Amino acid sequence: MRLVLEAAGQQYAEPANESKSGAKEVYSRIDRNSTGDEDGNPPQLAPPMLKVKNAGKNGKTLVISQTANLLLYLGTELGLAGEDDVDKYYVNQFALTALDICDEIHSTHHPVSSSLYYEDQAEEAQRKAKDFRETRMPKFMGFFERVLKSNEEKGHGKYLVGSSLTYADTSFFLIVESLHYCFPKELKAREKDYPLIFTKFYPGIKEEKGIKEYLASGRRIPYSNKCLFRYYPELDRQ
Amino acid sequence: MRLVLEAAGQQYAEPANESKSGAKEVYSRIDRNSTGDEDGNPPQLAPPMLKVKNAGKNGKTLVISQTANLLLYLGTELGLAGEDDVDKYYVNQFALTALDICDEIHSTHHPVSSSLYYEDQAEEAQRKAKDFRETRMPKFMGFFERVLKSNEEKGHGKYLVGSSLTYADTSFFLIVESLHYCFPKELKAREKDYPLIFTKFYPGIKEEKGIKEYLASGRRIPYSNKCLFRYYPELDRQ
Repeated sequence: MRLVLEAAGQQYAEPANESKSGAKEVYSRIDRNSTGDEDGNPPQLAPPMLKVKNAGKNGKTLVISQTANLLLYLGTELGLAGEDDVDKYYVNQFALTALDICDEIHSTHHPVSSSLYYEDQAEEAQRKAKDFRETRMPKFMGFFERVLKSNEEKGHGKYLVGSSLTYADTSFFLIVESLHYCFPKELKAREKDYPLIFTKFYPGIKEEKGIKEYLASGRRIPYSNKCLFRYYPELDRQ
Repeated sequence: MRLVLEAAGQQYAEPANESKSGAKEVYSRIDRNSTGDEDGNPPQLAPPMLKVKNAGKNGKTLVISQTANLLLYLGTELGLAGEDDVDKYYVNQFALTALDICDEIHSTHHPVSSSLYYEDQAEEAQRKAKDFRETRMPKFMGFFERVLKSNEEKGHGKYLVGSSLTYADTSFFLIVESLHYCFPKELKAREKDYPLIFTKFYPGIKEEKGIKEYLASGRRIPYSNKCLFRYYPELDRQ
């Protein structure tokens, strides 16, 4: 979401990370007794959530969740959802695939349960990570390489759909970044198999207006083992 | 997808299940060398896929995939995506959540890898299923109970969003059906905790026009251990 907002030059705030009252609001929306808010928004299952003033029912505040849904909303509102009605479904499709990969990376650390510590499922994680590195990762990367190939004429190998940036690109860009963090050796060994991804797409997105400034800004939260993606050397290629 | 099509009275065919050439087409679209088709559609990662004549670029055939994307497309085109621009994001949100549950049910049978047999990961499956039954299932069910509650005034406890059927309802309906199949004892023990789901929503959806006829038709593919969802008694409540 941040990359989409930054690429569009849209101002935003992250109250849940910035204030106690912001965090409290998130907890109250996912409270197991919540039946929604006074603006007519339903209860939410989990963060991330997006809150947009005046965009809800009768001009009230809109609150929605589910990452793919937030990307669809922001992409549509901010002009990063594709150039026509056909492209918008391709864009949504590829963003959903990127999110699937995101889930799979996360579940290499937490194959049994996201509510258990890594240390309590480290053995299962070994098996899961091996399968991910050897089977899933080449499948996904090969797929996106071919999507870039199929769009090469319009996107010059820099975009997944059409001739300009969409939320499919920002989503897959983050997958490449996450793989760099979680499985650096495995990715390094495979880079040469995906020339469009690594010589056109990945360096190209880094230079996009808004994204370039964001990446250089220091505002970005660095990858760390306190976040969604973890680096456990024993799960990487040995 | 079938429920959406049936509820809308939209004719459709399933060539991949009905003919060799249909299956062959699916394989060619997911072939690891495919860079898309002559109608301008990109390669696909995996079924399910939707093919719609005259809906693609320049009036050509559209081919898209990713279940959530197909539901968004069909729901939008067939009038089952919510009553206004706000509802459409609530609908998409709840359908995505239903699909998340679907993935979690599937991964109770295949916690290590969907490319390995159940028997080769039965031990991990025991741990995963226990966590799913005791933690995840009540979390999800409680959430949807509260969504129905929040919409009770408009939906009478029968619909998740607004006052008529959407693809959020059909998606969550299938989750309840799948839980009945995979974890019958666990679901039975918990039914009383979710009165709107089990006395209004679930029986109500069964009576919806189009769906009622479909469920009675014999055209529906029955649950079986050859499909996505499996019934392993040892994973259910003991």
